[in-house]
Parts: sequence; structure tokens; C-alpha cells
Amino acid sequence: MSEHGKTPVTVLGLGAMGVALVEALLAAGHPVTAWNRTASRAEGVAAKGATVASTVSEALAANEIVIACLLDYDSVHEVLDPVAAGLAGRQLINLTNGTPGQAREMGAWAEELGAEYLDGGIMAVPPMIGTPAAFIFYSGSGTVLARARMALDTFGGVNYLGADPGLAPLYDIALLSGMYGNFIGVIQAFSLIGSAGVKAREFAPLLRGWMDAMSGFLERTAQQIDDGDYVTDVVSNIGMQAAAFPNLAKAAAEQGVSAELLAPLQPLMDKRVAAGHGAEDLVGVIEILKK
Amino acid sequence: MSEHGKTPVTVLGLGAMGVALVEALLAAGHPVTAWNRTASRAEGVAAKGATVASTVSEALAANEIVIACLLDYDSVHEVLDPVAAGLAGRQLINLTNGTPGQAREMGAWAEELGAEYLDGGIMAVPPMIGTPAAFIFYSGSGTVLARARMALDTFGGVNYLGADPGLAPLYDIALLSGMYGNFIGVIQAFSLIGSAGVKAREFAPLLRGWMDAMSGFLERTAQQIDDGDYVTDVVSNIGMQAAAFPNLAKAAAEQGVSAELLAPLQPLMDKRVAAGHGAEDLVGVIEILKK
Repeated sequence: MSEHGKTPVTVLGLGAMGVALVEALLAAGHPVTAWNRTASRAEGVAAKGATVASTVSEALAANEIVIACLLDYDSVHEVLDPVAAGLAGRQLINLTNGTPGQAREMGAWAEELGAEYLDGGIMAVPPMIGTPAAFIFYSGSGTVLARARMALDTFGGVNYLGADPGLAPLYDIALLSGMYGNFIGVIQAFSLIGSAGVKAREFAPLLRGWMDAMSGFLERTAQQIDDGDYVTDVVSNIGMQAAAFPNLAKAAAEQGVSAELLAPLQPLMDKRVAAGHGAEDLVGVIEILKK
Repeated sequence: MSEHGKTPVTVLGLGAMGVALVEALLAAGHPVTAWNRTASRAEGVAAKGATVASTVSEALAANEIVIACLLDYDSVHEVLDPVAAGLAGRQLINLTNGTPGQAREMGAWAEELGAEYLDGGIMAVPPMIGTPAAFIFYSGSGTVLARARMALDTFGGVNYLGADPGLAPLYDIALLSGMYGNFIGVIQAFSLIGSAGVKAREFAPLLRGWMDAMSGFLERTAQQIDDGDYVTDVVSNIGMQAAAFPNLAKAAAEQGVSAELLAPLQPLMDKRVAAGHGAEDLVGVIEILKK
């Protein structure tokens, strides 16, 4: 804690997200030491009150709490490996985008060097940082989270998932996967409608109501997955859906639209039907996704 | 109109959906003449008051309004071609699943035979028929819609799209495409989370909130598409997303989960970036889907 009760923090990396983090910290009165490979990018945050470190060693020496927000995990290693001894006694919070495996590796590496490690997955774009719309998954050292909590609260909602550092990137990527699936559906729907000369604006309220209705099935889907029970009598079964699915590609072709985004579903459905699950629910394809 | 003000209707096809339609009509007091290739399937609706026709000709002769709800458009032709003369003066409402091209072909064919044609796409599973949750897209003859309106209102909401018979199946398939995209996202997210031993039930509320938040972007997406303007400074651009996207497959591989469902997005993003649109929004991939 600094003398006025705020938490001094070092931030490594001043891309758009790093700058947003520094600005949120400064706005809340936390002293910030910032470092960036290209020093000129630090001028903006310096003008707002950040201390600029000219070397990574200097940045590490400045504060116990060190937040990394770099391009990827390889960049984190490139920046920290040469000054690894400086990590001893530090609490490293890595908000860089990566995979569960990378987070686990970095957590083990940091601990060997005498640092405590917390990984984070930021569920926001830079302009959302510091607003109630932003939230961040954290996993790894609960001690680091508690120690840095006041500072981390300035970024947005805190969602701590447990001691395995891989959980934050896993949840992050799971939600991103959900987002990209949603995007696939939305973009395919707009493509089809647009091929008939209908404005996307006109179709949007209908599509939105429909997509919102879909998310009403999420709890039921979760129950089926947890129970491993895909028996259905409520909706059309996977056999019927596998048989009707070619209509999606056929209609798209008629309208001059590619159906490639939805194509991978057909073989999964067919495989499930061939394995004797044709009378069950579509959700059963999750069994095939497990390698 | 029958003498008590209700609309007498013929229904061809007594699969689960056909039966649901007949039951909704009977419940509202509309006289129904039903036909099915396998006559034994008509026993249930006969017990509820439907007249069972033993031949298609008899069914066509019984009422001016004829609703077809068969396996596919080929089945409709198989059933009606041999008795095509009986279509003269009839108002054919085809609620069979098919493509826009098939609907347009059937509309032209029916008109040549002296029938008026209305196509429909049912956005419901059979148990939803007759409830406020069901709605049906219609396109084709507005005259048929007006004439049959009281009967059609018994199925669920009526959404008339215009004179082109292809519009109902097009909207139907566009929404189904949206649904399958949503499914891809949801099932991929649950797969990833499940690989870490987390219950789907625990993750479901988080995923639901996230997916609902996604649909908040729909109007903005529609605007971008209508304007053909994919410039962005709010969210991460397609160049950044294309670069980070391999993390989704990498994370899935680490966790023993297939990432095949989201795979088609990568080449589309890469193509868009290679064409010089890296600083624009992801939504621009819609330009590549147009063949």
C-alpha cells in the first residue's frame, strides 16, 4: 500500500488495452509505473501521472504488484526472461491473451522464480475498461488477488475461478467460442436475407428475438450435458435435423450465398445418427467433440 | 366458410406436425378433412372429429383450402401430380420444409393448374402449435392468406412476407442458420468448460448472460451490413481477431476438444485481412460469403 492507502502497480505493455488499464488505475488514484518496449507510447500515460520506467528491471523494482498486458505469452517471456531474477518476491498478474496451457506453464515458471502468479482473461475491449460492462476472469494465486483487489476493481467486475491458472484463459476462450458461434449464425442469417434484397435493419429485430429465444434453451442444454442424457421428445430429433440440414446449403446455393460456416455440423450429425442416436437430441454431438 | 362461420380445411400429411395442425384447427371448431398415405395414422384425428379422406382426390374435392404438410417438396409433387387437375380452383397452402427455389417452382406449377399458392415456414416444433410461442412465415398469394386467415391463426403468429413464395422458406432457413450458429457457439463453450471438469449447469448462467449481451450488437451489425461500411474503432479489428483466433483451436487441443465447428472462420478472416481490410470490423467477412 502507498501512504495514501492506494496500491502502487507496475504495468508492462502499453498497447490499447495496457493504456486503458493504466488510465483506470490512475483515475482511481493508484500510483502506476509503466513500461513499454517502444518508449514513445508511454508519453500519453506519463502526461496523466504515470511514472515511466526506462527498463523492465526498473519497472519490476518499482512495485511488488506487476501487471503484464502484452501481445502474447511469448512476448511476456521475451520481456521477463532476461530479468527473471527481478521477479523474486513479486506478484505477477498476467492479463495477456493466451491458452490454458500457456497460463499453467507461466504460473509454474513464475513460482520457481519466487513470484506468486495470477492469470487473467479480460472480457472487454479497451473502451469498456473501467465501466460496469467489463469483467475479468482470474485464476491462480488467491493471495495475489486479495492483495491487488483494490487495483483490479478499477478495471471492471472480478470473477475468480480457482487456483488452476489455466481456468481464466479457458473461460475466456469458451465465451469467445460462444461469441464466434453466435457471429456465424448472425452473419449467415443476414447473408441469406440480404440475397433477397431485404435490408439487414428490417430483419434485425426478428433475428434478435429469435436469438434471444434460443438462449432460453441454455439451461436445458446444460442439464442434458451434465446428465449425458440426450433423449428428446420435445424438439425435432437429430435424425430429422440431419436429414433436413442439406436444405440450408441448398437454399444458400440458390441464393448465391456460401454455406461454408455451418458446414461442419453436417458430418457431426451424420456420425451421431450412424452411431444409433438418431432419435436423440442434437446436443449429443458434444460427445463427438470430446477427442 | 362453413355454415357456422368456421373455415373448412383439408390437411394432407399426418406426421407429428400435420397432426398438430389438425388438432389446432379442430380445437377452434374448423371442420377438417385429413388425408395421409398410411391411413392408420389418421385414426387419432378421426377420433377427435376430423373427416378422413381415403384418397387425395377426395381430400382435394372436400374443401377449397388445402394445407400440405409432408416430408419434403418431392413428396408434395408425388402426392399431387397424379391428381393435379383437382387443384383447379383450390387455394394451396404448403407448410412443408423446403428451399426458396422449391417454393417458387411449386408456386408457378400450382398457378398453371389454376390454383392459388401460399407457402409457409413453420417456426415451431409440433408441441408449440396453437400456443403463442409458435409463429409461421407466409409468402405468396395474399388472397389465400386473407381467405384462410381464421384457420391459420389457430396455429400461431402469422408473419406475411410478400408475394414471392420463396421468402417464407428463405426467412425460415435464415433463422435456422442463426439457431445453428448459436448452437455451435454454445456447444463449443460447454465442451471447453466441461474438459476442465466444470459442470455445464454452473457455467450456463454466465454463458447465457454473455450470449444475450452479444445479441445487443445485432442492430449495429445490421447497420454496418446495410451501409457496407465496416470501419471500426470500438472493438478489436479483424486483423487482431485473425491473429488471436488460433488460440481457440490451440486451447481446445490442449483440453482434448475438437475445434472443427469454428474452423471455417479462420480462412474467411485471413482472406479479408489479405484483401487489405485488416483494420475493419469482423462483420466484413459477409462480403466473402456472397459468391
